[in-house]
Amino acid sequence: MGSLSDIGLAAGINILSALGFLLAFAILRLQPINDRVYFPKWYLKGIRNSPRHSGNVVSKFVNLDFRTYIRFLNWMPTALKMPEPELIDHAGLDSAVYIRIYLLGRLKIFVPLTVLGFCVLVPVNWTSKTLENAQEVTFSEIDKLSISNIGQDTQRFWAHVVMAYVFAFWTYFVLYKEYKLIASMRLHFLASEKRRPDQFTVLVRNVPPDPDESVSEHVEHFFSVNHQDHYLTHQVVYNANKLASIVEKKKGLQNWLVYYENKHTRNPARRPTMKTGFWGLWGKTLDAIDYHTAEIEKLSKEEDAERERVISNPKSIMPAAFVSFKSRWGAAVCAQTQQSSNPTLWLTEWAPEPRDVYWSNLAIPYVELTIRRSLMAVALFFLTFFFIIPIAFVQSLANLEGIEKVVPFLRPVIEVQVVKSLIQGFLPGIALKVFLILLPTILMTMSKIEGFTALSALERRSASKYYLFLFVNVFLGSLITGTAFEQLNSFLHESANKIPEIVGRSIPMKATFFISYIMVDGWAGIAAEIIRLKPLVIFHLKNTFLVKTEQDREQAMDPGCLEFASSEPRIQLYFLLGLVYAVVTPILLPFIIVFFSFSFLVFRHQIINVYNQQYESGASFWPDVHGRLIVAMIVSQLLLMGLMSTQRAPQSTLLLGLPVITICFHSFCKGRFEPAFVKLPLQDAMVKDTLERATEPNLNLRDYLKYAYIHPVFHSDDIEHPLAIEEEERNPLVATKRNRSTPGDSKYASETSSDINF
Amino acid sequence: MGSLSDIGLAAGINILSALGFLLAFAILRLQPINDRVYFPKWYLKGIRNSPRHSGNVVSKFVNLDFRTYIRFLNWMPTALKMPEPELIDHAGLDSAVYIRIYLLGRLKIFVPLTVLGFCVLVPVNWTSKTLENAQEVTFSEIDKLSISNIGQDTQRFWAHVVMAYVFAFWTYFVLYKEYKLIASMRLHFLASEKRRPDQFTVLVRNVPPDPDESVSEHVEHFFSVNHQDHYLTHQVVYNANKLASIVEKKKGLQNWLVYYENKHTRNPARRPTMKTGFWGLWGKTLDAIDYHTAEIEKLSKEEDAERERVISNPKSIMPAAFVSFKSRWGAAVCAQTQQSSNPTLWLTEWAPEPRDVYWSNLAIPYVELTIRRSLMAVALFFLTFFFIIPIAFVQSLANLEGIEKVVPFLRPVIEVQVVKSLIQGFLPGIALKVFLILLPTILMTMSKIEGFTALSALERRSASKYYLFLFVNVFLGSLITGTAFEQLNSFLHESANKIPEIVGRSIPMKATFFISYIMVDGWAGIAAEIIRLKPLVIFHLKNTFLVKTEQDREQAMDPGCLEFASSEPRIQLYFLLGLVYAVVTPILLPFIIVFFSFSFLVFRHQIINVYNQQYESGASFWPDVHGRLIVAMIVSQLLLMGLMSTQRAPQSTLLLGLPVITICFHSFCKGRFEPAFVKLPLQDAMVKDTLERATEPNLNLRDYLKYAYIHPVFHSDDIEHPLAIEEEERNPLVATKRNRSTPGDSKYASETSSDINF
Repeated sequence: MGSLSDIGLAAGINILSALGFLLAFAILRLQPINDRVYFPKWYLKGIRNSPRHSGNVVSKFVNLDFRTYIRFLNWMPTALKMPEPELIDHAGLDSAVYIRIYLLGRLKIFVPLTVLGFCVLVPVNWTSKTLENAQEVTFSEIDKLSISNIGQDTQRFWAHVVMAYVFAFWTYFVLYKEYKLIASMRLHFLASEKRRPDQFTVLVRNVPPDPDESVSEHVEHFFSVNHQDHYLTHQVVYNANKLASIVEKKKGLQNWLVYYENKHTRNPARRPTMKTGFWGLWGKTLDAIDYHTAEIEKLSKEEDAERERVISNPKSIMPAAFVSFKSRWGAAVCAQTQQSSNPTLWLTEWAPEPRDVYWSNLAIPYVELTIRRSLMAVALFFLTFFFIIPIAFVQSLANLEGIEKVVPFLRPVIEVQVVKSLIQGFLPGIALKVFLILLPTILMTMSKIEGFTALSALERRSASKYYLFLFVNVFLGSLITGTAFEQLNSFLHESANKIPEIVGRSIPMKATFFISYIMVDGWAGIAAEIIRLKPLVIFHLKNTFLVKTEQDREQAMDPGCLEFASSEPRIQLYFLLGLVYAVVTPILLPFIIVFFSFSFLVFRHQIINVYNQQYESGASFWPDVHGRLIVAMIVSQLLLMGLMSTQRAPQSTLLLGLPVITICFHSFCKGRFEPAFVKLPLQDAMVKDTLERATEPNLNLRDYLKYAYIHPVFHSDDIEHPLAIEEEERNPLVATKRNRSTPGDSKYASETSSDINF
Repeated sequence: MGSLSDIGLAAGINILSALGFLLAFAILRLQPINDRVYFPKWYLKGIRNSPRHSGNVVSKFVNLDFRTYIRFLNWMPTALKMPEPELIDHAGLDSAVYIRIYLLGRLKIFVPLTVLGFCVLVPVNWTSKTLENAQEVTFSEIDKLSISNIGQDTQRFWAHVVMAYVFAFWTYFVLYKEYKLIASMRLHFLASEKRRPDQFTVLVRNVPPDPDESVSEHVEHFFSVNHQDHYLTHQVVYNANKLASIVEKKKGLQNWLVYYENKHTRNPARRPTMKTGFWGLWGKTLDAIDYHTAEIEKLSKEEDAERERVISNPKSIMPAAFVSFKSRWGAAVCAQTQQSSNPTLWLTEWAPEPRDVYWSNLAIPYVELTIRRSLMAVALFFLTFFFIIPIAFVQSLANLEGIEKVVPFLRPVIEVQVVKSLIQGFLPGIALKVFLILLPTILMTMSKIEGFTALSALERRSASKYYLFLFVNVFLGSLITGTAFEQLNSFLHESANKIPEIVGRSIPMKATFFISYIMVDGWAGIAAEIIRLKPLVIFHLKNTFLVKTEQDREQAMDPGCLEFASSEPRIQLYFLLGLVYAVVTPILLPFIIVFFSFSFLVFRHQIINVYNQQYESGASFWPDVHGRLIVAMIVSQLLLMGLMSTQRAPQSTLLLGLPVITICFHSFCKGRFEPAFVKLPLQDAMVKDTLERATEPNLNLRDYLKYAYIHPVFHSDDIEHPLAIEEEERNPLVATKRNRSTPGDSKYASETSSDINF
């Protein structure tokens, strides 16, 4: 590959496959039976009802209205129609801002860059004759359009230097505007959102042990003294990890019970049986329904005992608490200040949304945190640079001879020539593929070990890790062939100013490779996203075997969510490619624009119709996104400098200013906007407090916050809680009738004040 | 130089010169006439009175009691006697902690390191035969004691690796203990110190302009709304830089007037005359007393006009204010939180002590700050690496031919052979010497441009810059001969893992050089410090020509202060040398111990008897000191690794862990202790507030804070202010009688509330 027609052909193939996916999607989504897979968001919102309720039997499952098939692309304009404020209202700020990343990439950065690049750089490159004159070098049209074609004609490099500066300043401008807009969107969102428990609540960690008081009493006393005018109430955190696992296990068994009961209903003649051994493969044969009922009963008892133990045993109370204040102002003050003279005790931070809390990490002491983070930094280093070693080891084990040795009875099958070559062709790739599929999970686990307490923080942290991995192994790994470890080694042995040259030199040569990468991974990959193959299959399986009532069907839906941790770093890779090639090989830019436009369309459709976000962080990920864009800019500028100095262009030193300016720009933006994503300004808090006091003078905040931060296992079976709270809000003078008398409840409550319970 | 006896000789010479200085000091300090030069602190405290009041005429000037001369070193035990709590009380925490740096270096780090080094490493090095066997290499005893003597006998490197780890862990332990101690000393100091205006006050910068309100009104409204329960009063900041310069100029003229009046009193027959031209060298001859009286009168009028203008013109009010709160808690909250949704407006930080405020920097807008800091970062880079270029240029101009061309009439003098060789010998050095003397001033100016608002912050910042300069130009510059620019160039062209090797290789060779450096710069330099030559001369000049009354003599005293910005980086250089050579050439350590012990003694004496600190920052420089020690550790560990890998020691990779551990240790200490130096914990603030409310329920805080933060030029002529405040404190119910009716005073006061004036 390499010539323009080759790339055109590849583009055609990829466009066709993308269209194939879209066609499949168009057909699948029109079938009523798939309605819950492709429109779960509307079901969750209670707006859409199953189309299967009406019509004849066949039309319950298959759409027979052929007119709808003709307009199979009509979801696209629909996806674009919803205006942004409505989108924020419908899907949350996180999703709306996430979508803006694509818009930023497409319209705001790369379209102007492409136009300028094609007007200025492409003619400059094309009219140079270096490659044509060099007879012995093979080159393609792509190369003719790139900076490689300039050669010794150094006067022409002026165009590239000027364009590098123009591109950089345009990007600064766009990034600044975008950061400003998103900061104000965030503040507006926070200011206009409804009353939420996290606005009044601060998470306190590392409560020091006290010989005379329980954690609850200690917290109560500390905050009534040090925030005497503002402290309202608090909730201690229970270590309910074991209870949660029991509940989880019970749920799994209940699913099986339902499955066997359904089986029995369909075939009442025969009671279903099962085997107790591993995966039901061996062991005693039992009556499945009886067995599961008994097991569930046993677990229920265990659960009750554990629940009792958690609530009554002081040791299961973790040295952390959610402390609530009378006003947003009081909470803002507490979250932003240092409480104790030992800065590792009484650590306060904004409480995450109740949905966003990652409960298991709430009680990690400070010293352990430092150790955990250091260890994970080292682990990340090794994972990034040496991940290939264990994979190579697995690959060396998983060769044909190895398989034949372990499972000798398969030998006749393996020895067949077709199977043999198939295995030999695929096996080496499989270990790597499995690793890459598992990678986001591994990174998320590492972030969990680091001890962050909010899901949103975990996702942000994993995204950083994943970006590092992609940068080293995909971007640098493609530019410099060889494993990451070999790169690291060669970098260590090269001088600092040689590294950009080495990497820079290979940039123009790899343009065609990255174009095809964009088409395969970007175009077709995004089109595959819209079909939702995995949720489709799982929904139909569950629907067939488990669903009995409409509520079961509701639960069988898996709307999924935007996976920030794995998808954002991928977008960043495209930004990086676009910025690096903008000056070098502008022909690459249109492919990136297609990717961004197409992704924008697909994900806008998905967040409107499918995804259901688990939490709402108010776009708190934007500083990370911005930071990685800055990294991409610096990398592109350094590499351009290296590339030009290998071509002996005297102008390359002029580019030295660009990274410096970029760093200044970054530090400016950081100081200007980042606080808006970390702290809540007191002025805004005060405005909301005053407004609320004026409109709802009789609000009973204490009741409102009473059950806000309970570990989910404690209210897993009574989901009416939030509703009850809603009700109270509407009618705040009616005394609450809820009496969740869990055994240990009164114990602590009576000890200090009637409000201290979970 | 190089053999042990050579070093012994040099040590002897330096010890003798140090003793000479000490002897001179002993004699000078015993003369009553010098009493105010060597014991100014006691005069300022009002404890010591001039010994010249009693006795006969001669003994007023010369000490004739010969017994005191015999005990000429008896200041040393005296300096050590004062216990630390008393020292803190006497000289402030800053000074007491500064002294602890020497103690840390001497007793806690280097004494144990020396003992271990001499017990383990010296024997290991000495008994190796590498250098003796290599016949053609010249070597000295120093080299025989250093790591160079190990050669190919790689088994012996185990001792060095183990010792490197032992040294590192010992240093971690000591640093951790010290950081902990100093953090608690600071908190204790803050908790026990008397009521001070800065405890209640926050400096607010970047007050946004408001079309309808003056700055003062705007501040008043903003804080009464957003800190409604806590806001007390505020003082706006005037741009009085021009006024300050007029006051300064007037003071200078007044000094001259006194000088001429004294002259006239001594010789009443002749009125003194002067010339108006440059430096009094030419121009009209005038009666000096008349001229100066007239000039002073003119300036006084100008001063009044300017004072009027500053106070009445709204444009001279800067968008900054000192906002005071009703309690320390309120101030702590305001200082630590973000006020406005635009994080570049309403910037709040703890107000520095009134003495510590750097007034001219109070009104720099946020964007300008970013630009200023970026520019200064670039300037620092060039200053550090390219400072030699302008100096070389000056040197090339200032040769003999150049001088003869500019001042041809000096030719006969210059042509004398002795003068010629003298000039040729000294001239090249002079430009460099002048630069090095000016360097701390240049760095301080750069820090001022960066826009810090407290003198303590300026000093800390300048110290960082100076350390960078010393590190590159003294430490690296001595290890790798060549200018800093050449080093930079070679570093850029070398691979990352080669740099420690290049530097490391030359470490053992430079040991003797650094030993002599320590003796000349450290031993003799510190001994020279105690004589205070410059203040001695200036005091006697002033005493002869200016002093008329006892109060004048008081003002002629120049107690000076610890110059953190220039002396701390020098100590750090010794730490760096000590840590680098601890494993390589342990013989260097005793020299450093002598330096630290001697400095400890001298500076303890100075802070007890001489220095008068300008401000008290509560040891807020400690995180910087600790950070630079960490840098020194990492550098020493990397260089040891480089050195050992050039000797082909396979153990060098084992040292890779050390820098990683050091970084982890640093991040742990930073999180654990640094907040104590930046923020005031709310708990501590609350304790002090509660205590104060209990002991002084009737305190009128508003009056106490009224004049706390006025620009010094506004109360330069009425120094009774603080006294008046003291009085009020003792008798808070008496209404204040002060009526400083400056013209514009009532104007703003009446506009908003009676409390808003400066």
